[in-house]
Amino acid sequence: MNLPTPRESRTNFSAVLHGTRDVRIEPRPVPVPAPHEVLVEIAAVGICGSDVHYYEHGRIGPYIVDSPMVIGHESAGTIVGVGGDVSPTRIGEVVALEPGVPCRRCPQCLSGRYNLCPGVVFFATPPVDGSISTYVVIDAAFAHAAPTGLGFEQAAMAEPVSVGVWAARKARVSVGDRVLVTGAGPIGLLAGQVAKAFGASVVLITDVSDFRLQTARALGLGASRADAPIDGKFDVLLECSGAEAALTAGMQALAPAARVVLVGMGADTVSINVPLIQGKEITLTGIFRYANTYPTALDLIARGAVNVDAVITHHFELAHTEEALTIGRRDPHALKAIVTPGR
Amino acid sequence: MNLPTPRESRTNFSAVLHGTRDVRIEPRPVPVPAPHEVLVEIAAVGICGSDVHYYEHGRIGPYIVDSPMVIGHESAGTIVGVGGDVSPTRIGEVVALEPGVPCRRCPQCLSGRYNLCPGVVFFATPPVDGSISTYVVIDAAFAHAAPTGLGFEQAAMAEPVSVGVWAARKARVSVGDRVLVTGAGPIGLLAGQVAKAFGASVVLITDVSDFRLQTARALGLGASRADAPIDGKFDVLLECSGAEAALTAGMQALAPAARVVLVGMGADTVSINVPLIQGKEITLTGIFRYANTYPTALDLIARGAVNVDAVITHHFELAHTEEALTIGRRDPHALKAIVTPGR
Amino acid sequence: MNLPTPRESRTNFSAVLHGTRDVRIEPRPVPVPAPHEVLVEIAAVGICGSDVHYYEHGRIGPYIVDSPMVIGHESAGTIVGVGGDVSPTRIGEVVALEPGVPCRRCPQCLSGRYNLCPGVVFFATPPVDGSISTYVVIDAAFAHAAPTGLGFEQAAMAEPVSVGVWAARKARVSVGDRVLVTGAGPIGLLAGQVAKAFGASVVLITDVSDFRLQTARALGLGASRADAPIDGKFDVLLECSGAEAALTAGMQALAPAARVVLVGMGADTVSINVPLIQGKEITLTGIFRYANTYPTALDLIARGAVNVDAVITHHFELAHTEEALTIGRRDPHALKAIVTPGR
Amino acid sequence: MNLPTPRESRTNFSAVLHGTRDVRIEPRPVPVPAPHEVLVEIAAVGICGSDVHYYEHGRIGPYIVDSPMVIGHESAGTIVGVGGDVSPTRIGEVVALEPGVPCRRCPQCLSGRYNLCPGVVFFATPPVDGSISTYVVIDAAFAHAAPTGLGFEQAAMAEPVSVGVWAARKARVSVGDRVLVTGAGPIGLLAGQVAKAFGASVVLITDVSDFRLQTARALGLGASRADAPIDGKFDVLLECSGAEAALTAGMQALAPAARVVLVGMGADTVSINVPLIQGKEITLTGIFRYANTYPTALDLIARGAVNVDAVITHHFELAHTEEALTIGRRDPHALKAIVTPGR
Repeated sequence: MNLPTPRESRTNFSAVLHGTRDVRIEPRPVPVPAPHEVLVEIAAVGICGSDVHYYEHGRIGPYIVDSPMVIGHESAGTIVGVGGDVSPTRIGEVVALEPGVPCRRCPQCLSGRYNLCPGVVFFATPPVDGSISTYVVIDAAFAHAAPTGLGFEQAAMAEPVSVGVWAARKARVSVGDRVLVTGAGPIGLLAGQVAKAFGASVVLITDVSDFRLQTARALGLGASRADAPIDGKFDVLLECSGAEAALTAGMQALAPAARVVLVGMGADTVSINVPLIQGKEITLTGIFRYANTYPTALDLIARGAVNVDAVITHHFELAHTEEALTIGRRDPHALKAIVTPGR
Repeated sequence: MNLPTPRESRTNFSAVLHGTRDVRIEPRPVPVPAPHEVLVEIAAVGICGSDVHYYEHGRIGPYIVDSPMVIGHESAGTIVGVGGDVSPTRIGEVVALEPGVPCRRCPQCLSGRYNLCPGVVFFATPPVDGSISTYVVIDAAFAHAAPTGLGFEQAAMAEPVSVGVWAARKARVSVGDRVLVTGAGPIGLLAGQVAKAFGASVVLITDVSDFRLQTARALGLGASRADAPIDGKFDVLLECSGAEAALTAGMQALAPAARVVLVGMGADTVSINVPLIQGKEITLTGIFRYANTYPTALDLIARGAVNVDAVITHHFELAHTEEALTIGRRDPHALKAIVTPGR
Repeated sequence: MNLPTPRESRTNFSAVLHGTRDVRIEPRPVPVPAPHEVLVEIAAVGICGSDVHYYEHGRIGPYIVDSPMVIGHESAGTIVGVGGDVSPTRIGEVVALEPGVPCRRCPQCLSGRYNLCPGVVFFATPPVDGSISTYVVIDAAFAHAAPTGLGFEQAAMAEPVSVGVWAARKARVSVGDRVLVTGAGPIGLLAGQVAKAFGASVVLITDVSDFRLQTARALGLGASRADAPIDGKFDVLLECSGAEAALTAGMQALAPAARVVLVGMGADTVSINVPLIQGKEITLTGIFRYANTYPTALDLIARGAVNVDAVITHHFELAHTEEALTIGRRDPHALKAIVTPGR
Repeated sequence: MNLPTPRESRTNFSAVLHGTRDVRIEPRPVPVPAPHEVLVEIAAVGICGSDVHYYEHGRIGPYIVDSPMVIGHESAGTIVGVGGDVSPTRIGEVVALEPGVPCRRCPQCLSGRYNLCPGVVFFATPPVDGSISTYVVIDAAFAHAAPTGLGFEQAAMAEPVSVGVWAARKARVSVGDRVLVTGAGPIGLLAGQVAKAFGASVVLITDVSDFRLQTARALGLGASRADAPIDGKFDVLLECSGAEAALTAGMQALAPAARVVLVGMGADTVSINVPLIQGKEITLTGIFRYANTYPTALDLIARGAVNVDAVITHHFELAHTEEALTIGRRDPHALKAIVTPGR
């Protein structure tokens, strides 16, 4: 391993979840990159709904935090060391970290669907540690060089933007499509912008929060209250709220041959109308993370096609990670909170 | 119009549904083909579940039989007259009748999705008359020449085989796929065979009827009781039973990136498991009739890739159409009944 | 037919090609719309390379002008009359005319590939008259309502923009693709902009004309001389020059799994490098007109995603049609000339 | 590493190409599997045209044999040892060896196009040794378990059958397609059968050799002399001869929207007709090896959908490898020769 001169920050402070509503900042050893890995000094980590869910409930479905785990997976930083098989010229590179590294050997990996790899190692999915840490190691191919000029926080947003890119790809959004997005949280606001970048002629986003609808409008998206009738017929529905009522209402507003992507997480089962799906030959699918999206997501952010700054509403130093996890229930105007371990 | 010498059969007897459980054989005028149409002397018409449903209930969802309507839409016969824009050389041709003629002008038609045309005129969908009749007229492009040697009953089966072809296309069945078919009625038995013809390496069909499972085995398909655990993982699920339990069980048996097609009709709403759809990125769609399938369906029947004779269990002359409509509830071994107006 | 009060313009002046370099403005009868047609008063017609080719050579390949033929096919105007099956409310509508009306009955039409219909009737393809005329009739479904605010000349440009949309669709251009366009004539300049609208991260256009490259740059596209080495690797090549050298150079600059679309017309045969196509699994196709593109093209123009004004360099009244046909060889800065029959 | 009791065959004899027409059987050390690898005792290796080409010319295009290299890459055998990360239960497994192991880290690998990986290590592509050897090591994921009952020679044929599967996938062959195969060598004969298994309704194969055409007919394929006019219109052309004349003739016989796959290798450049490609919107691509085909190829062989025995015409013991390399020019009835290192 190739590591530059030591410095004060050599201690690796991490935000460790010990149990429900119990997150602690603790020193951990600085990890050593394996031959294909890089060591990254983390500068910014976005807080995702899943981090909050683990913090509040200690689990998400079958994934249970039963031993202390570092949280966070929307991260960016600077490469400060490389393993033996990685070029030392990468040291100093600003990178966005794609948080799931697959096995590369199973049929899913070999087919390009590495997000469905059963052996994937994903930041902050128990028992794998996440990235709210001064230092992390990651496979070199999953540390994506940020385009020149991109800030750390913007680069970190390549993760939720990737969700939008993957949803748009699965929905085959193309020029002229009318796209309905249900749910104007960070994912919905980013996915709606991504749909525009894919050429959608109309993007309408629905939510129950007037504040979020205002944000949508400020971003150039159409916006409508979730309890109002939906005007028009849509070719694509990106369901980003996790609310069954939103899915049901959205599906009523679809054109023949429309595509639905279930992005949001909520109830485990939803009711779907069979004659509607059959009569319009609607296609419905869901997404699980993403694959091969990071370069595209970074490009969209870098050329301003997706404005991520508009969804970043709060910033916290590492010591205040817990505040970042609770801001959502304290401030109705909170969208995305960023923790900055590097400061 | 070009019509050969008159003959005794000139009266056009039709099976007319007057109301619930009230079907009558009545003379109707012999129709005259419009310029792009042909006049067909009907030789065989398969009875579909929808015919039975109209007979038993007088309606299917929003489609209500509120005036007398000829039933039947799985039909084959011989061209005996042609409209002014159709070559008289077609007289004498044995044809399978594709029962839905679209408007040809709407966006769905122009996109090749003519089955989703809102203006489609479809045999035996109120108020359009069906084809259990001595004579019918149909657009010349929808009277498909049967390959040499195909019998009328086999040609008539191009309709339910088309459902299987459309389902297989929507499911993108290809060589090596493992296909699960839930429901071994006529549609399931044909769709299972179609899936084999598309290259499926394994086709497993489930049903509650041992008789139907035996038929499946005789056709070279795997067969398993619907209440038994499903062995293995499948790339495709063709749901042909309309039973929610079958869909639920089938979806549990799917591999990553699997495709589900809802073919069967049953309850209006079904519950689906969102984490399952997301975690495996399963794609689910439904089909409404079919488009551009008839030549393929006829080819599959003609070269023996799909055995339709095995699903034809009963034959009735026109006068006994009502028996054809009730055989399903009288004989548990009934699969497909054929009415032969030409006799 | 429904026609408003007669007016002076009732004479139908047309630009009729009588032979090589012999175009005459002649009165013709005002056509009467058939039941599904509309009568359109033409306001603007773009001059296409094919019009010039017929004017200069009297033929394009197998298509020979052997009797007088009205030229022009990139047209827009106002509906002034409707056939019996068309709603009179359409009178007054500003429309872009999709110039090829297919048979709607052949396998190509039924499959949604109506541009490949062998029976298509296309403006200004011998012996079918074109649209440089005071009045034309066209099938109502092929007279596309222009979005509010669009001028006639802009609406007429939906035709060449459709070529770009079709090329982008065939090339499956999507977000993040790097697109190379060879040839910066009107089609290349429009196709390059369309590629951007489809989400291309980079569009580089090459040409031998510095003027055209400047226009490309003014439109926000990358631009490079055709005789300079091409920098970078591209996912898509839209060949719009018809020059074999451009195709050869462009193909050398492709990434694995790249797509090539032959848009330009030139030599009948070109040499392609087989190991290159195999080694990178490049896919190459060509386009013949377009299908189902008009609403998308009009939308792109209306929302400013494609700037058509920048390629319109000259305007001529009907009486000066011949000047419009020759401006290309007289003025090296000419791109698209428009004839305005309505003035 | 886990290795069963030593036996006599412990010496690793290999067929080593030293230069043009200079192949020698030489002892080499038995290789030791790395953690993810298996050690395979080779039982059968098919001779491919590329092996013959290296033998005759010492190079294929840019690939030059400039140091001694073991030849052969169509191989099957038995796992006799495993690396530390592979389950010892795999010892004894009959496997077909997929000959190219990619880097797993580059964008091509992560996208599922691992055959286009620039870092792929492929048997018998200089300087990588091939598999005509008593023992080879290979990545465990690329040693594919043969279905029960499959012989070694049949399993070895999974390699050329994979070429056919990949070609059929790239050509999107599906039920009802009419497929033309030009060239009835081993690849053409296998690809033609694969096309049938993908559902082609018609497969016509052309060649100049009457013997090969007879073989095609015996396999149930249509067959026609390459110098005779081609009857009918085809949806797919699989060019397996490498002859430009075959490509040209084949392309003249295509239907609208047809797909062409360049499988055969021959001249570096071929001429293609642009108006033909444009006028019918033909899509042309080439293939480079294959990806994710082995399980499918083995399944097709195991269920008899592809008869590989019919193309295996000669067998040679390891000592007679040179005869296997020259049988093609000595016997006009030779198709595929097999070398059996295990005997």
